[in-house]
Amino acid sequence: MATRDLVEIDERRLLRRLDDLAQRGALAQGGIYRPLYSSAWSSAMELVTSWMKEAGLLVRRDAVGNVWGRIEGSRGGRVIATGSHIDTVRGGGALDGALGVVAGIEAVSSLWRRFGRSTRILECLAICEEEGSRFDTNFWGARAIADRLEPGEVDRVRDSDGITLAAAMRAVGLDPGTAATAVRRDLDVFIELHIEQGPVLEDHGPRVGIVTTIAGTAHLEITVRGQPDHAGAMAMDRRRDAFLGASAMSLAIADAATQMGHPAVATVGTIALEPSQVNVVPGLARFTVDTRHPDPARRSELITQIGDVSRKIASERNLGVEIRTLRDRPPVALSPRVADVLRRAAVAAGVEPREMTSGAGHDAQVLAAAASVGMLFVPSIGGRSHCPEEATAAEDVVLGTRVLATALRDLAYQP
Amino acid sequence: MATRDLVEIDERRLLRRLDDLAQRGALAQGGIYRPLYSSAWSSAMELVTSWMKEAGLLVRRDAVGNVWGRIEGSRGGRVIATGSHIDTVRGGGALDGALGVVAGIEAVSSLWRRFGRSTRILECLAICEEEGSRFDTNFWGARAIADRLEPGEVDRVRDSDGITLAAAMRAVGLDPGTAATAVRRDLDVFIELHIEQGPVLEDHGPRVGIVTTIAGTAHLEITVRGQPDHAGAMAMDRRRDAFLGASAMSLAIADAATQMGHPAVATVGTIALEPSQVNVVPGLARFTVDTRHPDPARRSELITQIGDVSRKIASERNLGVEIRTLRDRPPVALSPRVADVLRRAAVAAGVEPREMTSGAGHDAQVLAAAASVGMLFVPSIGGRSHCPEEATAAEDVVLGTRVLATALRDLAYQP
Repeated sequence: MATRDLVEIDERRLLRRLDDLAQRGALAQGGIYRPLYSSAWSSAMELVTSWMKEAGLLVRRDAVGNVWGRIEGSRGGRVIATGSHIDTVRGGGALDGALGVVAGIEAVSSLWRRFGRSTRILECLAICEEEGSRFDTNFWGARAIADRLEPGEVDRVRDSDGITLAAAMRAVGLDPGTAATAVRRDLDVFIELHIEQGPVLEDHGPRVGIVTTIAGTAHLEITVRGQPDHAGAMAMDRRRDAFLGASAMSLAIADAATQMGHPAVATVGTIALEPSQVNVVPGLARFTVDTRHPDPARRSELITQIGDVSRKIASERNLGVEIRTLRDRPPVALSPRVADVLRRAAVAAGVEPREMTSGAGHDAQVLAAAASVGMLFVPSIGGRSHCPEEATAAEDVVLGTRVLATALRDLAYQP
Repeated sequence: MATRDLVEIDERRLLRRLDDLAQRGALAQGGIYRPLYSSAWSSAMELVTSWMKEAGLLVRRDAVGNVWGRIEGSRGGRVIATGSHIDTVRGGGALDGALGVVAGIEAVSSLWRRFGRSTRILECLAICEEEGSRFDTNFWGARAIADRLEPGEVDRVRDSDGITLAAAMRAVGLDPGTAATAVRRDLDVFIELHIEQGPVLEDHGPRVGIVTTIAGTAHLEITVRGQPDHAGAMAMDRRRDAFLGASAMSLAIADAATQMGHPAVATVGTIALEPSQVNVVPGLARFTVDTRHPDPARRSELITQIGDVSRKIASERNLGVEIRTLRDRPPVALSPRVADVLRRAAVAAGVEPREMTSGAGHDAQVLAAAASVGMLFVPSIGGRSHCPEEATAAEDVVLGTRVLATALRDLAYQP
């Protein structure tokens, strides 16, 4: 089969299924919430399982609830897989994760229908959890596959109602004691189609991106210590206002990322003040910084700059400052070999794809420990995601799925 | 009696009583908390009641729990009174309110012991509540005296445990249905001795201040609306970050007050972000501004500037902004006649007092509706208050109390 032949898919079914899946966990106030092992999650997993079965795939739920649909390759060997996650953030959109799940099923189903049995084993995958929006378990599904579960995690981690991960697993018929058996040591390639969640493809084109690197995320916690004082009686020039210090730091931190240039980012997403009273000068401010860059050296430079500007401002304002690292995930480089397959598939669809980095984290970065991994991006309208407005043009959804199907054919149907 | 004669007081008893009162509601972690109608509050009220009785004053608890100790003046007529509040903020210090209560009892007791019956009726007063630290009832005690209670207030207002003000009153033997009978229509003069709670007297001297005006307090709530976005995927230059807008506004608001010069103040004491997640660009920030100035025109100018800089920054950053007034209390001018009596008493103690404004609110500003009111300030070490470090030099406590006693003599013992 020549790589220039584009694989056709059932466009209308693809788009209808995305709409159907978006009903599972839809909130009255708009947006979607499908937390891990919830009834909305179970309902979504039942739906995608039914689609895999309808296509005639061999369907299996693993020990953590990931669902796999398989074409047994005639030559066996290591597996070609595709997919994404079924869970969502609270109030999320219809495509983050869902696109890669539905498109993966569509691509594998189309290949099976049109070309029959593959030479390589080919699997589509609905990953149980990526977002960490119910439990603090980011990448739970992909970590189980990649043998990255933590000892005792199922009993230690609880949701906001105090329910353990283990209890939540039992409630959907899973045995937490067997979670580690979800590991896959037979993966060769994993490809994930995902929305970009940023504005680059929309602003600059083309309609397909190939991810070379997933940015490393550092989460810092910065604590600024000043002095609480009476808001009426303490003169302005005698104050040591922790919040004004935190404000100046936050502006300087954002400036540092902006000055470094795209794709550097730094975000202050949370802040807490003490004593947090209308009529008291804040004596303490504690805020978080999420900062990312795909280049390890630039990322280190950015973290250093964040510390430097924070300490400089603290010193100028006679404030104390402490910086703590909450999380430090290095950047992950994806497979050039798989990127090359994806590029040829895009070209077959008439698009010279953009090589780009991902600022967002993805299952792909965890599965890179277990397989050669590639990622396809399609544009996000307005760069929006994790919100009800999350959207991608139907023609881009279809294009991305065709490119995915074409790449899977090129990998799994070689004679 | 010549006004140049300074009235002597019992220094050691005064200081010991301040220490004793500071034990009532003392917290294990440091600081004091005497919320209205609590057991710590009752214990403190019993203690000051015992001191009034020990001095031979006529003691009476009114319908909201204010405690009055009285010398029946030989000529009757309208009353000369002094005092302050017994309650404290959470984790407050030993002097805010307490100084005026203990010094008032000491001054009236010393006058009674040395000079016997006054010509005018003279009363010392422990006011039940000023801080609003249990119920949202700021100035509850003084408002009852000044006929400023709100209809239904006792049943509407609840503490953080859901207990109504009425239920809390009943628990200490008060009848909430009679609260309005605490009104006093027979007051002539009220004098409050209080710590400054700011650094002016410490920095510039002298050791006694006389308050001419209590600053008007405005509380504004500013809501900044941007767009929530993925902290990893949304490019810096495409963001509409509500928190960065709020940070820039907070710095500009503080600058506006600093530029206007002392005693203008503006404080951002609380802020809340939405969605308040480490990895999401804040789409909304809501913060409060407490701003004060004793001059009504300058105060209006400051409020206008706060609105102007907030709207300008919102516009520059493509953010929405809404400004809501939560509270707007105008400045209160105190009595020049009483200030003159206080000034002469200070001069008798060898101090030419500073005329100054109060940035903090005080019972005096409410009682100004019911009496001619004067206020004395003594220095706060480091300008600190509402914290365990709140302190005043013993010699300044003694000096302030002597000046108070002298002024009361000049008012109440005229032949």
